[in-house]
Amino acid sequence: MKDLLLIGIGPGDPRQVTYEAVDALRRASVFFVLDKGTEKDELVRLRKAILQRYRPEGGYRLVQVADPSRDGQALDYVGAVQDWHRQRAALYSRLIAHEIGADDVGAFLLWGEPGLYDSTLRMLDWVREGGLALRLQVIPGISSVQALAARHQVPLNRIGEPLTVLPGRRLAEQERIDNVVVMLDGQCAFASLDDPGLMIYWGAYLGTADEVLIAGPLQAVKAQILQVREEARGRKGWIMDTYLLRREL
Amino acid sequence: MKDLLLIGIGPGDPRQVTYEAVDALRRASVFFVLDKGTEKDELVRLRKAILQRYRPEGGYRLVQVADPSRDGQALDYVGAVQDWHRQRAALYSRLIAHEIGADDVGAFLLWGEPGLYDSTLRMLDWVREGGLALRLQVIPGISSVQALAARHQVPLNRIGEPLTVLPGRRLAEQERIDNVVVMLDGQCAFASLDDPGLMIYWGAYLGTADEVLIAGPLQAVKAQILQVREEARGRKGWIMDTYLLRREL
Ligand SMILES: C[S@@+](CC[C@H](N)C(=O)[O-])C[C@H]1O[C@@H](n2cnc3c(N)ncnc32)[C@H](O)[C@@H]1O
Ligand SMILES: C[S@@+](CC[C@H](N)C(=O)[O-])C[C@H]1O[C@@H](n2cnc3c(N)ncnc32)[C@H](O)[C@@H]1O
Repeated sequence: MKDLLLIGIGPGDPRQVTYEAVDALRRASVFFVLDKGTEKDELVRLRKAILQRYRPEGGYRLVQVADPSRDGQALDYVGAVQDWHRQRAALYSRLIAHEIGADDVGAFLLWGEPGLYDSTLRMLDWVREGGLALRLQVIPGISSVQALAARHQVPLNRIGEPLTVLPGRRLAEQERIDNVVVMLDGQCAFASLDDPGLMIYWGAYLGTADEVLIAGPLQAVKAQILQVREEARGRKGWIMDTYLLRREL
Repeated sequence: MKDLLLIGIGPGDPRQVTYEAVDALRRASVFFVLDKGTEKDELVRLRKAILQRYRPEGGYRLVQVADPSRDGQALDYVGAVQDWHRQRAALYSRLIAHEIGADDVGAFLLWGEPGLYDSTLRMLDWVREGGLALRLQVIPGISSVQALAARHQVPLNRIGEPLTVLPGRRLAEQERIDNVVVMLDGQCAFASLDDPGLMIYWGAYLGTADEVLIAGPLQAVKAQILQVREEARGRKGWIMDTYLLRREL
């Protein structure tokens, strides 16, 4: 039986971590850090900064591994993502089997909220199906979605209305947008919407020193967001952004 | 200019509060606590317990006010809620004007995440429209939705799929349920669904000593949830519950 903590660490600001998460950080003896290549090195650095802040005395091992890259060009998007996740699951099985000893507690530091567009829980299902027994604990974290709403000082939904959170590639098929939060949108799906009734609340690098916020009627600020986003991405080499679209009443 | 903090305090467990929220708690000099009548007294107690834990030395004022009750029978649901919110906005205007002095920092301790089915931001819009200048800061908190997913150890959504969060009364109109989280559901809307392909992950009093969790195929566990829910509500006099519905692949 391997002990494993999935710890939500918020969207980047080390103050946006819960006391429960820090308790968990302090219980773990082995941390797994996935390294997605140079462009995302900063995300690894931010995780290490959180460890240094809350475990300054050390006393843990850090296992940093290269994450198998995924075929971004594949036509079958879901299939490609699943293949990629299977490879990662195999990697995780090996890591958990070899790195978590009988007296160890392993931990993954997960960006934002572990339940939102994070595949770790799914991968651990596969690890279990592969025969490893796991004793899991999941610790919620502040999502980038919540940081977005807080920084713009807007609610995520209005009285009685639903909220939908979706990946950029699913935006075009939405029949009606009341309150929609878009994540994982490398293609700027908002730019293709010509509905004049929508407001957008956009944020990039939320919770970090590079945070940028833009809000306004979508049609009025669309071009500005595209430009600011492109500049920021060029300067830093990568971008993490998310936005809320809302129909004005 | 009145300084006001909207602090998300999570779903009940004082460890599920962020360091940022505690920093804010420590900056405030006046706390406003809405009292919704006897059944919800416990929620007021939980807020006070959080204050006692993180501000043990005191040095703040607590302004406890009765929340105007709302017409639960009104046919025009949105209209009734809006009337109720206007009354509350008037109350908030008076409180903010009278209780927050020039050197004070006021604060609302908001259940879960301030952006999710919480009307405080909307009320403060009305307060501003009424002529009061406010300097706001919003601090995200762990939502009951996140506590639900963490306790059941399930992701809120699968690869590439949208997540919808909605109030119980909007569930029936959903055409397709992939990942739907239901809140504010006094009528147990799940009980009317006869779709055999749905799983339910249900939780009540999440993060508190009374927490109850039930999960399984909706049709198989529906009756059990209704029974456990009714018993708990009878025993405690009130209930807070939420659930995730997911279509199995
Ligand atoms: C794989 S998902 C993980 C989401 C994460 N679990 C969460 O709760 O925020 C990555 C997406 O989250 C959003 N994101 C994560 N961190 C962000 C940040 N600090 N600022 C803006 N967007 C962020 C972006 O849309 C990004 O494409
Ligand atoms: C007015 S909404 C506020 C939601 C809150 N802002 C949040 O983020 O959890 C109240 C609803 O939240 C859900 N809820 C809040 N706290 C809960 C808890 N501790 N356990 C289960 N459900 C809870 C219930 O569905 C309840 O009807």
